Amino acid sequence: MDIIREGDTVLIFIDEKRKFITRVERGRFTGTDKGFILHDNLVGLPYGSIVKTSMGIPALVLKPLLHDYLAGLVRTTQIIYSKDAALMIYLSGIKPGSRVGEAGIGTGALSVSIASIIGDEGKLYGFDISDKAIETATLNLRNIGLLHRVVLMKRDVKSELDIEPLDAFFLDIPDPWNAITSISRVLKPAAPILIFLPTINQVEKTVLSLRESNAYCDIHVYETLLREYRVEKEAVRPRTRMIGHTGYIVFARKLL
Amino acid sequence: MDIIREGDTVLIFIDEKRKFITRVERGRFTGTDKGFILHDNLVGLPYGSIVKTSMGIPALVLKPLLHDYLAGLVRTTQIIYSKDAALMIYLSGIKPGSRVGEAGIGTGALSVSIASIIGDEGKLYGFDISDKAIETATLNLRNIGLLHRVVLMKRDVKSELDIEPLDAFFLDIPDPWNAITSISRVLKPAAPILIFLPTINQVEKTVLSLRESNAYCDIHVYETLLREYRVEKEAVRPRTRMIGHTGYIVFARKLL
Amino acid sequence: MDIIREGDTVLIFIDEKRKFITRVERGRFTGTDKGFILHDNLVGLPYGSIVKTSMGIPALVLKPLLHDYLAGLVRTTQIIYSKDAALMIYLSGIKPGSRVGEAGIGTGALSVSIASIIGDEGKLYGFDISDKAIETATLNLRNIGLLHRVVLMKRDVKSELDIEPLDAFFLDIPDPWNAITSISRVLKPAAPILIFLPTINQVEKTVLSLRESNAYCDIHVYETLLREYRVEKEAVRPRTRMIGHTGYIVFARKLL
Amino acid sequence: MDIIREGDTVLIFIDEKRKFITRVERGRFTGTDKGFILHDNLVGLPYGSIVKTSMGIPALVLKPLLHDYLAGLVRTTQIIYSKDAALMIYLSGIKPGSRVGEAGIGTGALSVSIASIIGDEGKLYGFDISDKAIETATLNLRNIGLLHRVVLMKRDVKSELDIEPLDAFFLDIPDPWNAITSISRVLKPAAPILIFLPTINQVEKTVLSLRESNAYCDIHVYETLLREYRVEKEAVRPRTRMIGHTGYIVFARKLL
Repeated sequence: MDIIREGDTVLIFIDEKRKFITRVERGRFTGTDKGFILHDNLVGLPYGSIVKTSMGIPALVLKPLLHDYLAGLVRTTQIIYSKDAALMIYLSGIKPGSRVGEAGIGTGALSVSIASIIGDEGKLYGFDISDKAIETATLNLRNIGLLHRVVLMKRDVKSELDIEPLDAFFLDIPDPWNAITSISRVLKPAAPILIFLPTINQVEKTVLSLRESNAYCDIHVYETLLREYRVEKEAVRPRTRMIGHTGYIVFARKLL
Repeated sequence: MDIIREGDTVLIFIDEKRKFITRVERGRFTGTDKGFILHDNLVGLPYGSIVKTSMGIPALVLKPLLHDYLAGLVRTTQIIYSKDAALMIYLSGIKPGSRVGEAGIGTGALSVSIASIIGDEGKLYGFDISDKAIETATLNLRNIGLLHRVVLMKRDVKSELDIEPLDAFFLDIPDPWNAITSISRVLKPAAPILIFLPTINQVEKTVLSLRESNAYCDIHVYETLLREYRVEKEAVRPRTRMIGHTGYIVFARKLL
Repeated sequence: MDIIREGDTVLIFIDEKRKFITRVERGRFTGTDKGFILHDNLVGLPYGSIVKTSMGIPALVLKPLLHDYLAGLVRTTQIIYSKDAALMIYLSGIKPGSRVGEAGIGTGALSVSIASIIGDEGKLYGFDISDKAIETATLNLRNIGLLHRVVLMKRDVKSELDIEPLDAFFLDIPDPWNAITSISRVLKPAAPILIFLPTINQVEKTVLSLRESNAYCDIHVYETLLREYRVEKEAVRPRTRMIGHTGYIVFARKLL
Repeated sequence: MDIIREGDTVLIFIDEKRKFITRVERGRFTGTDKGFILHDNLVGLPYGSIVKTSMGIPALVLKPLLHDYLAGLVRTTQIIYSKDAALMIYLSGIKPGSRVGEAGIGTGALSVSIASIIGDEGKLYGFDISDKAIETATLNLRNIGLLHRVVLMKRDVKSELDIEPLDAFFLDIPDPWNAITSISRVLKPAAPILIFLPTINQVEKTVLSLRESNAYCDIHVYETLLREYRVEKEAVRPRTRMIGHTGYIVFARKLL
């Protein structure tokens, strides 16, 4: 049975709107609007236990899943939504041992997902032109304990990249058409590039550039919509509000 | 540089409608309506090379991505679409070393995706009540070289399961409400269950059962829609036809 | 050229978030957070003129379209969204001279749309069990000048209705399955019934009841999603937020 | 009670896939793959009656709704789908007596819907540059008995139009940006223009032109998605296949 230890990162779950990611440290506490929780009371409990806040409200202590971590990340730029990250990672085919590139890295949210899957034998090369992004991503990756799988570099991916061939590249910059050639040189033959784009004009320009480059094939453009449902007995219906748009996903494969 | 070797599984890509997954064996060939390709000509080429069919049509020889394999699987039952598999796997948080359960296994399409991510240190326990399903999944997993990470069992998951605690469970059976209790007993605390369901009535029954069981929390119901876009210069638009429905995804976490 | 006259209802349009429906009366004014507009200054201007508020902000004075009126209605219950009203009215095939039934009438928003299309030779019979609804709908229909085409009755449509045969019926009550028989008796053969329902459980119960009644055929269930787009030069994208759900529409036709 | 008379247009309904629109003429018959139906047997029956085909299959004889007529139209070009026609007509606010413009007219499908709503006091001016379109629309409008409300003209709407001011204009041509100025001159102040466009590039160009023209305000872009549901007891779900795209709708209002 999994026991909570000092230094663990745990998910404290009071209700849907009150989820807290915190690192357990003796002598400290986690404060909420429903009372605080002493970390000393957590150490030694099995995961999945229910504790009470100082106001007597029950709280579950859970081992976080990957997407819990992401919800708790320090954010400086808009992160790619789960629905998009999920499809991009799936289509990329990355797995333990994969060598992956990513630019820009933003807050490192996607970096965390990628680093989790590639394991200790894999390597993620993250490029960004902003010091702030590299700082934030470093912080987030370290907190989650995945920093050792990642190399973060302040570098513009539109210029030459001198790294060994990669199994996949994730690209989220405003002008990907300027980076597809330099990226194609560090992709293994047939390796995929996954590009995330907020506007349809960027999609058009990117796809036309991919075609003209003669460096890519099997080009596809996707958009996903995610609906969440409310379920009550005899009253099932989608939620009234939803996210209507995050961005478009372009998939392509490197030609030799 | 990656070189094609005898015994490799390769993707032969002529055009969008002509993609072939095949295992390279000397003395054999792959036949298409655009001519055949001798495997003897493939061995020793770098991946990403272009060869010509007997009719002179150029064909790319690529290293397959995971979703290429899936498109080439022997199918006996409907497989979970990529958009759904992608979200389920993402929400599950599985990674190298994860211990995962799955029932039913159908053709093993989802099993392949899971087995790919959990690595050699992970283990997938697949349950199905059909001999045919176990046979097909075994075949598909062996072809892709992932069978050693998987234990397939002819077993009804509605009865007691005697395995060590799991990090996640993927459930795709017609009456999941009858299996959530037995599955909850083999899930680690806070570990997620991901349930795929074609009808909204199954969703209602499942969610109400999850709540009444007091064995799960953090219950969510999702539906994804995937649109593909056609991009021509000055003429970008979604494809006219799309898949309007595959199924709903229920997410929940094991309570202690 | 259309000239604004005292007693006209006009749309004052300052910007997307500042649209005001008002009846022009000499000696009165319309107040906004961008200043007020004297009605005396409006009388005699052509429609489409630009006037200035007391704060010097330009405002367009327009002849309202039907959906402008609806946005300005006194609301007591949730109104059927434009996308749903549009499809229901279209499928109903109502036109000048049509005899139409409606229950419940809510605020009269759909009543306004129906009354507009059926003309002075048409007649709308509106049923509701709430005094408040009848009051509000009366107020709204009178303000728009359509009350003479409508007969509002405090009556439960689940009991017998003694009116001459109708060309269509619009039904928006929580338990339509209890009303389909009484309504079928006042529909002309082949006349359609349009039912609006928020939950999928109501849809199931309604459709099964329609089938079992043997009083209806050609039964269909629809759901519409409406996306709005933001267009800036070189940056076109759907709006980030959208309405994810309003309700389902059931269509059926009366059998003899 | 409505009785079928010679010369009536009726809807013969055998099942969902066998609906026939036909004009009743003594001595003639309607043939189907389920047998034929003698028109002599229809005259004098009440609408909603069930007759048998020569093969003994029951068939309902119904009074057609507007969208039944549309399904039976002679088609030469793609017609605007019901979901789009419904929203465009609704947003246009047209009603009995409205004076409406339309270009191109295609097969006259939208013309039929418009002509139905504007009544005998209304007038629809339809413009097209193709003789074939005018011929087909004339045929379709005559068959439905609405031709007297419509004036069809072989004319390019990009050049000056010499007609009295209109209450609304429906535009479905490949390059609407070339027509918005000439159309603005025949719209009453505040009258709406509704533009249907298959690609997002046309949307961008149209919206930017509308803004630059200074002749329009209140510009909106919409896209509708329509899902149909299959309802069986305890098994409700959206249909597997759906139309993923028809086109975008641009709405704007004439400025003075």
